[in-house]
Amino acid sequence: MRKVLLIVALAIVVSLQAASSLNSWEQGTSKQAITAYVDAVTNKESPDFIPIKDRIAVFDNDGTLWAEQPIYFQFFFAMDRVKALASEHPEWKTTEPFKSVLADDMDGVMKRGVPALLEIVNATHSGMDVETFKSEVKAWLKTARHPISKRPYTDLIYQPMMELINYLKANDFKVYIVSGGGIDFMRSFIPELYGIPEEHIIGSNGRVHYEDGKIIKDPEIHFIDDKETKPVAINYVIGKRPVAAFGNSDGDLAMMQYTDANTEHKTFQLYVHHTDGEREYAYDRESHVGRLDKGLDHAKVSGWTIVDMKEEWKIVYPFEL
Amino acid sequence: MRKVLLIVALAIVVSLQAASSLNSWEQGTSKQAITAYVDAVTNKESPDFIPIKDRIAVFDNDGTLWAEQPIYFQFFFAMDRVKALASEHPEWKTTEPFKSVLADDMDGVMKRGVPALLEIVNATHSGMDVETFKSEVKAWLKTARHPISKRPYTDLIYQPMMELINYLKANDFKVYIVSGGGIDFMRSFIPELYGIPEEHIIGSNGRVHYEDGKIIKDPEIHFIDDKETKPVAINYVIGKRPVAAFGNSDGDLAMMQYTDANTEHKTFQLYVHHTDGEREYAYDRESHVGRLDKGLDHAKVSGWTIVDMKEEWKIVYPFEL
Repeated sequence: MRKVLLIVALAIVVSLQAASSLNSWEQGTSKQAITAYVDAVTNKESPDFIPIKDRIAVFDNDGTLWAEQPIYFQFFFAMDRVKALASEHPEWKTTEPFKSVLADDMDGVMKRGVPALLEIVNATHSGMDVETFKSEVKAWLKTARHPISKRPYTDLIYQPMMELINYLKANDFKVYIVSGGGIDFMRSFIPELYGIPEEHIIGSNGRVHYEDGKIIKDPEIHFIDDKETKPVAINYVIGKRPVAAFGNSDGDLAMMQYTDANTEHKTFQLYVHHTDGEREYAYDRESHVGRLDKGLDHAKVSGWTIVDMKEEWKIVYPFEL
Repeated sequence: MRKVLLIVALAIVVSLQAASSLNSWEQGTSKQAITAYVDAVTNKESPDFIPIKDRIAVFDNDGTLWAEQPIYFQFFFAMDRVKALASEHPEWKTTEPFKSVLADDMDGVMKRGVPALLEIVNATHSGMDVETFKSEVKAWLKTARHPISKRPYTDLIYQPMMELINYLKANDFKVYIVSGGGIDFMRSFIPELYGIPEEHIIGSNGRVHYEDGKIIKDPEIHFIDDKETKPVAINYVIGKRPVAAFGNSDGDLAMMQYTDANTEHKTFQLYVHHTDGEREYAYDRESHVGRLDKGLDHAKVSGWTIVDMKEEWKIVYPFEL
């Protein structure tokens, strides 16, 4: 009996270790900084100990947890939906920006800038209840393929970051997504793919209203979760300051500064720096998607952790395992 | 050694039972309905079993978890703040609705209606960062006294409902507050008093902006969390339909209907009916605060649980223990 108990106990310990391993990280400065921080704040004897209720970690999604090139994946979803809905909107054949979308003229769409993108999002992300919308996204993710890698978008998540999320969860952190992506879009796949529940996902969102038992999506942008509005959304949904923040672009800088300004607890900030043009994409200061410029300067001055993807990640995607 | 283990195990069982007891509830229809529901949805062998991730329960606050007569307690806070800030605003002496507040003329305030109340809230709930505001509320709660009972407001929570929250938590429900009260006001006392963390508190809120590491409260109402907007807030913050909803007024009806319309799981709805004019207050269809009219009809037709406070609660407040 004692032997059985011992084996059970050992099995539990081993499985906990496996769940919290950072196997895809090289023994570099970033991995060392992560584990040193977590060790310090979870050790009850440490002066930096943080009670479990305050262990709030926030992660950006696009470019931090999955790829975002050549453009945010949600945009491909919107483009595909324009095509799927085109027969119900004959006027789109002659009206921009839909005309360009239907002609697969991406440059034609992009040169019209943000107003055109918002018009496409409004037209394709509304007119149905939230639950139906999520089913649409799920169905799309099953068949859609990334234009360059030709893989399902859900293949293009970063294995080292998934390990990092699990490592933090194993150390009693509550892990939130705080991203510019659409909240309903993200809630369609993140719970199953990352193991992060709907109520820990914060994102941009359109206006909705309640009608006859359902939440209906209206064709109007309500909140863009980016830059200075990330701390605003964190304050509204979480109601306390995070202690750890993870991002990859200038859009995450305010959220990281807000975290860094936590006067109660020791904090941690990490930027994923896209340095790997071979396995992924190499971009920072000049990129239109996920630009990391001010943030990179700020991170260097502040002593934040900057992950060199090329040098510090043994693999990028789970399918390399 | 075995004996010690047995004693430890027994102690754990006893303490869990104590934590999840509904001792202040009479053995009546409401208590029976609550325990029958929880038994059905937490038993793995039951056809009504609900996985833990979906066990979301939402509670209104004013009138459901603490008293709300003669008017919402937050309003007394706002009135006291007008007085505290009066020396910085000499113009208030001659400007309504502040003039009435300073003269303790409650009728003079009330007859001006909602716009006056919003003006008072805007003037008293802004111009500082969120953390400073919460400190102000905490300090106020320590000294302020309820005008009728002369007790601290935090004494006026409903003991049977605190037991219900703990009972649900012990059965792996995630318990959220979804209330018309101000989100920062509620976050100042609910975490400590009810054991519900900041990130599970949803409420009305003013506009805020991020500035220099802080969240600053602006003098503008942003979102009133009442009636049809309660499901909207639940959808935004939680992102899935609750399975159980608890309220006391028509303001909670939409949230309860939204919960009732959950097609995936067995649901539970409960109205606290204020029937006890002696120990608390008796009011429903005609009350200006916490009116329960349409909701009462709807609850009867739908077979929801209606708690008769006078008959079903052994005690109302914790100080009666």
